[in-house]
Amino acid sequence: MGIVLFTITSAMTSTLSVPNPGIQDTHRCQLSPLAVPERLLLGPGPSNADATVVAAMNRQPIGHLDPAYLTLMDEVQELLRYAWQTDNAMTYPVPGTGSAAMEATLANGIEPGDVVLVGVNGYFGHRLVDMARRYGAEVRTITQAWGQPFSLQELEKALDQHRPNLLALVHAETSTGVRQPLEGVGDLCHQRDCLLLVDTVTSLGGMPIFLDAWQVDLAYSCSQKGLSCPPGVSPFTMSSRAVAKLEQRQTPVANWYLDATLLRKYWGSERVYHHTAPINLTYALREALRLLAEEGLDARWQRHQQTAEKLWAGLEAMGLSCHVAQEFRLPTLTTVRVPDGVEAKAVAQQLLLEHNIEIGGGLGDLAGQVWRIGLMGANSYPEKVDTLLQALKQVLVP
Amino acid sequence: MGIVLFTITSAMTSTLSVPNPGIQDTHRCQLSPLAVPERLLLGPGPSNADATVVAAMNRQPIGHLDPAYLTLMDEVQELLRYAWQTDNAMTYPVPGTGSAAMEATLANGIEPGDVVLVGVNGYFGHRLVDMARRYGAEVRTITQAWGQPFSLQELEKALDQHRPNLLALVHAETSTGVRQPLEGVGDLCHQRDCLLLVDTVTSLGGMPIFLDAWQVDLAYSCSQKGLSCPPGVSPFTMSSRAVAKLEQRQTPVANWYLDATLLRKYWGSERVYHHTAPINLTYALREALRLLAEEGLDARWQRHQQTAEKLWAGLEAMGLSCHVAQEFRLPTLTTVRVPDGVEAKAVAQQLLLEHNIEIGGGLGDLAGQVWRIGLMGANSYPEKVDTLLQALKQVLVP
Repeated sequence: MGIVLFTITSAMTSTLSVPNPGIQDTHRCQLSPLAVPERLLLGPGPSNADATVVAAMNRQPIGHLDPAYLTLMDEVQELLRYAWQTDNAMTYPVPGTGSAAMEATLANGIEPGDVVLVGVNGYFGHRLVDMARRYGAEVRTITQAWGQPFSLQELEKALDQHRPNLLALVHAETSTGVRQPLEGVGDLCHQRDCLLLVDTVTSLGGMPIFLDAWQVDLAYSCSQKGLSCPPGVSPFTMSSRAVAKLEQRQTPVANWYLDATLLRKYWGSERVYHHTAPINLTYALREALRLLAEEGLDARWQRHQQTAEKLWAGLEAMGLSCHVAQEFRLPTLTTVRVPDGVEAKAVAQQLLLEHNIEIGGGLGDLAGQVWRIGLMGANSYPEKVDTLLQALKQVLVP
Repeated sequence: MGIVLFTITSAMTSTLSVPNPGIQDTHRCQLSPLAVPERLLLGPGPSNADATVVAAMNRQPIGHLDPAYLTLMDEVQELLRYAWQTDNAMTYPVPGTGSAAMEATLANGIEPGDVVLVGVNGYFGHRLVDMARRYGAEVRTITQAWGQPFSLQELEKALDQHRPNLLALVHAETSTGVRQPLEGVGDLCHQRDCLLLVDTVTSLGGMPIFLDAWQVDLAYSCSQKGLSCPPGVSPFTMSSRAVAKLEQRQTPVANWYLDATLLRKYWGSERVYHHTAPINLTYALREALRLLAEEGLDARWQRHQQTAEKLWAGLEAMGLSCHVAQEFRLPTLTTVRVPDGVEAKAVAQQLLLEHNIEIGGGLGDLAGQVWRIGLMGANSYPEKVDTLLQALKQVLVP
């Protein structure tokens, strides 16, 4: 490696009137064309995508204001409404991964000084707390053990105690595998003039969600789990109640990239340029949502439930136990207790390197105590369960 | 359309103990598989990508902590350093489009109360002002006509007048097609204990950039222009001076998703989970950067310069004139004056719908006055110029 002098030709003198410092080749590494191992992704996400969905990305981008792209945007919005069971006009993917969509709901839902109550019973509750503080919220928390949901009574009591402007709950805690029942929570919130924000990252496309019936005001998700699309664009939605609050803000949204007052002008009828959209990922998301609509939510949800139950039965037959009570277990993500004397990390490593199967380890309070097994979208089929259980047996009982 | 009752089977009673409201099919539109027109993208971006690059996305994602993915991340970082001609340790793509990377430099480079001086001579200068204010900066501006760069003397005077903590300049203004010379600016800034932030969205991969030689402290770019990769991941870098400031912050970075104190733990040796990365786009970016290193910056920059000069000569031969003086013209993006009596929008529309060629219109002060023609990455070849000029002739002189 060393210095390559930058050749100044007559054609270039116009832009190179100032002597240039010479091109350094220090970081010019020579690489072979991309080669990526094929993994069966049975961790907390990303999950594998349908072949149709990844193939959709293998085409040239078009412009983010091309009439054909605007049609695509409308299709994505409409199908997202179906997936979430909402009529919200403001329903679109934000141009980032799930954490960006999480931040979008807080950035647009919170005004500095708001009291925000967060249900913390896992890693993503903690993240909501961290993010909400950055947007100037006075954050209060209600906590539960990692793996336990909140009861309606607990939530009601906390709402009365803290009188928040916004309550944030995680519908499907990716760190614990617990489902938070949401029936009735919206009513409690709205009786107290409080908005309801819900994390549906690990539930959308994989288990029952009725955003409007549950009166949810702000929700976000990701593309790479139940929707079975590669990560990089993330569903976001706001109810008319949340939009009304947005329109009455005294301060601008602190985050420019995720500012819904700007994004709505691009996704709505005005079509005002805001950012260059992640075009090829939007191709993929459109295909993933099309496949979901084709299958139908009813069939999709039942498939996920049945596949998960097969996993649970198989784990039990191996003498393993699930961390969450069956009533509150996610069909999309199962936390399995690591047996005494077994090193969790070594097992996951062996599955990955010897069997090309990815599963997740525990996070936070559950680090080292559980494995996290995802069966989502294109991976929620009985044969994937068989493949996993067989490999797991080989690793655990060699 | 209507209500489909959600069938409760025995397998599902565990998750559906509460009566559900029934699935609405209102938004369940039936779509055909994705079909996208093939466009020659000669606007301000996105540009077309090399076929190898788009094909790289057509594979399954792997995990964002998979050893194979960590290797890929290292490769991308190293090749980005080459592209930018920097040794900055903190050099990586942020998980969003160019505007996210722009916001990342401001969110991490500004502490509330900082004086930020922005050079405004186009649309993206205005955007920097808007974003910087949201991060609590006291923003001052220095302005120039749209299409004119700032002289070193003007910048020195403004630095002395405003004594900013940070100076933000646009190297290649996508709205005007003007190049901002940067030689000597870093020196002026550092003599005054000021950081230098530079927008290289339309310059990276298409024209000479020497980030370290120019003593730039914070820079950002995008993937879909000179790097010729689809949009969605965006290069970001910080010098050791900028990192030192980051480490001494009194307040947390206001933006969680783009917080470099968290991102560095994922991109650095610690490999702490922060967000789920846009895996497939990173495949594409790795390939785009590999192709750049293979071609070499010298050849790449010369190709862009020569292709642009061919365009300029062709436009002149048609009686059209460029908006920017040749000395400061970008090789990547040319602004062409719309002749009197010609409706700019109608011409662009006709090129798109009849010739499948996208060019851009004017923004802000230049709306209706110019077209913007990009020749970037895979589109910076003489035959693309011929195709465009031929189509333009047909549209203008039917």
